[in-house]
Amino acid sequence: MIIKGDIIFTKNKEKFEIYENGFLLIQNGKVKAVQKEYTGIEKVIDREGMLIIPSFVDLHLHANQYANCGLGYDEELLTWLEKYTYPEEVKFKDLAYAEEIFKEVLNKLWEAGSLRSVIFASLYKDASELMFKLVAEAGLSAYVGKVNMDRNVPDFYIETTEDSINFSEDLIKEFSNNDLVKPIITPRFVPHCTIESMQGQADLAKKYNVPVQSHMNESLAENAWVKQLHPQYKTSTDVFEQYGLFGSNSKTIMAHCIHNTKDELELMKKRNFYPVHCPESNANLTSGIMDVKGMLAAGLHVCLGSDISGGHNIYMPNQIILAIQLSKMKARMEDDLSKVLTLAEVFYMATKSGGSFFVNTGSFEEDYSGDFLVIDTTSIMAPREVRSPIERLEKYLYIGSQNNITERYLQGKKIDKPFKE
Amino acid sequence: MIIKGDIIFTKNKEKFEIYENGFLLIQNGKVKAVQKEYTGIEKVIDREGMLIIPSFVDLHLHANQYANCGLGYDEELLTWLEKYTYPEEVKFKDLAYAEEIFKEVLNKLWEAGSLRSVIFASLYKDASELMFKLVAEAGLSAYVGKVNMDRNVPDFYIETTEDSINFSEDLIKEFSNNDLVKPIITPRFVPHCTIESMQGQADLAKKYNVPVQSHMNESLAENAWVKQLHPQYKTSTDVFEQYGLFGSNSKTIMAHCIHNTKDELELMKKRNFYPVHCPESNANLTSGIMDVKGMLAAGLHVCLGSDISGGHNIYMPNQIILAIQLSKMKARMEDDLSKVLTLAEVFYMATKSGGSFFVNTGSFEEDYSGDFLVIDTTSIMAPREVRSPIERLEKYLYIGSQNNITERYLQGKKIDKPFKE
Repeated sequence: MIIKGDIIFTKNKEKFEIYENGFLLIQNGKVKAVQKEYTGIEKVIDREGMLIIPSFVDLHLHANQYANCGLGYDEELLTWLEKYTYPEEVKFKDLAYAEEIFKEVLNKLWEAGSLRSVIFASLYKDASELMFKLVAEAGLSAYVGKVNMDRNVPDFYIETTEDSINFSEDLIKEFSNNDLVKPIITPRFVPHCTIESMQGQADLAKKYNVPVQSHMNESLAENAWVKQLHPQYKTSTDVFEQYGLFGSNSKTIMAHCIHNTKDELELMKKRNFYPVHCPESNANLTSGIMDVKGMLAAGLHVCLGSDISGGHNIYMPNQIILAIQLSKMKARMEDDLSKVLTLAEVFYMATKSGGSFFVNTGSFEEDYSGDFLVIDTTSIMAPREVRSPIERLEKYLYIGSQNNITERYLQGKKIDKPFKE
Repeated sequence: MIIKGDIIFTKNKEKFEIYENGFLLIQNGKVKAVQKEYTGIEKVIDREGMLIIPSFVDLHLHANQYANCGLGYDEELLTWLEKYTYPEEVKFKDLAYAEEIFKEVLNKLWEAGSLRSVIFASLYKDASELMFKLVAEAGLSAYVGKVNMDRNVPDFYIETTEDSINFSEDLIKEFSNNDLVKPIITPRFVPHCTIESMQGQADLAKKYNVPVQSHMNESLAENAWVKQLHPQYKTSTDVFEQYGLFGSNSKTIMAHCIHNTKDELELMKKRNFYPVHCPESNANLTSGIMDVKGMLAAGLHVCLGSDISGGHNIYMPNQIILAIQLSKMKARMEDDLSKVLTLAEVFYMATKSGGSFFVNTGSFEEDYSGDFLVIDTTSIMAPREVRSPIERLEKYLYIGSQNNITERYLQGKKIDKPFKE
């Protein structure tokens, strides 16, 4: 398969690679090459004048919070969980409801061009199992986590430690052999998991070599709570480390990572660790601004997440732009303009950096997965406006929408809208 | 005219007024009443299940920068002006180009539900005159300013002091008798206007009782420049005050007002002064975060502006949400949660506070202008989602779009899309 257009991607965070009127060659679902010229005999899919970019990778979202997008942002994290989140998540006992919402979420991820994602599915085994199946049916790619929480949650929304571990293990066994849909161990966050649960989850991660996702250092109140629950430790990192969940054996995703100590950053560097920046959620819940620039400079795989429904937009370009804007506000308030993120850096986070969690994804280098979007910017151009490919990309990210994405390919295969409305 | 629906507006910044299944009565283009019941005999326009809210008021935008929306945000204000803005604005010598862009801007304002606005049109008299006529033709309402700049701009984009004053006066005379479209004196900002120009513009404001708009205290570099140009004064406020442009006779709009001194805030309070918060522009250009909460508490008419193309979205709900988010980030970084803006406060800024510049606009109190939007939130609801009117408004502002606005009324008259594409 050979497709022609204005091809843009990031090999590293420093700059965009741009092939105006270039050719992307895909073989067996993987990138074979990107070229300025093509003289071969195969038929070329001609998308001249359109942008071709890697599809987005959303490294953190809660599928069972979707109906709350745009609601309740006068609260901070802990009260927001009590007032809005648990009462919605508990509805997923009803499998028919779960199916309706999950199909909508997968349609929205498809629309948004986020063809790969890492999902908090549900506390419930049945609903989580359904999400695995629906992702596969949609033809998308995701890590799906059954959420584990066995303490400090309302009576109407809790499970036993035994169920946490057994159900997680059942799902790992059931879905370990799928190339596109994989399990991920999902302790909600330190305050919601007993020591026994954390240890049990760590054992599963080690036994099956499955990655781990959780939340950490999102809010000051959360950090104070962790210290109160575990007075012998200083941070969530210490607790996760103690109980084996901090990426010593497999990859670890931690959403937020805003209020970190120096020691935590040191340990993150040593491990195969993915901090996920969720700018919209952090702004909505008054959590704070992550030092993304500093963490990137330290060599961490900082990625982007929509974190619905802490964030309200599942559409990744909104997260890209807000990440840049928040970095500028942090830079201004700290009087340190070196903290400003560039468009290339955040695009890299949303594609290759997040994609590296899936291995060789999110770039157009040789052997990378043939995951890409075709984007038509005609509708967002002003009268007589003519722009270079990189300017069209900038405009698309700032003022475009899902509607500008005309085609979506995963592993070289065109993906259609997954579910009828 | 009587219209039924879920009516929401703000009389003051403290809270929303909500009439579920209420009736909005409009007479002679003005609000007569909002009622829970209606027992009269006139035909009711039934919009049950839809929201009815005041239309938005955009108090600051540059129509001749529209084609740059979404471009060049790796720069700060002064270099951005040089690299991107002047080269675009100079194109408005070409009246045919001006017409194409201005029609598109007015279509976009209409789509966005911003039926009233305050516009920087163009340096050029002809293009500015055209904007007055096009606003009238569109059936929208605006203050239109011919931009004045006679120093410290590139040779290819400057005018004489005499032209500044004469052309401004010509346009004031030509358009002073229109109810919906009015002139506004528009010095670009202190560094771009000579003392003679500022004095001449102040004389016009006094002579014709016309309001003034400009920019002020947007960036630290700008403030340093003002001090360097006028070493005898400390701030832009001092300079504007000295030369008669600081609201002593008529209303004054100043965009941005981020980096203010205590003395400036005191003087703002004394005068009929409208500081305009432009959150997206301030974030894009690394300008800083206005202390909106403090300025509202001080009793200032703080309003909202899209400031395209410093901002990239002409759509006011994006500004509403970002204003809240930035206030949260400021509150978090200054460890003062009392600085967090509520949804009611920012909605008030985008409707009644900005509307007060137009007199009795932006609310549904008696004798207010019959300006409103009808909003259908069906498309943004999740499966089975049922919400109260205020929750639907919150969701609309966070995750809705122009497409959810189904009807737009100005002075009780339905406005159709102004210009064919």
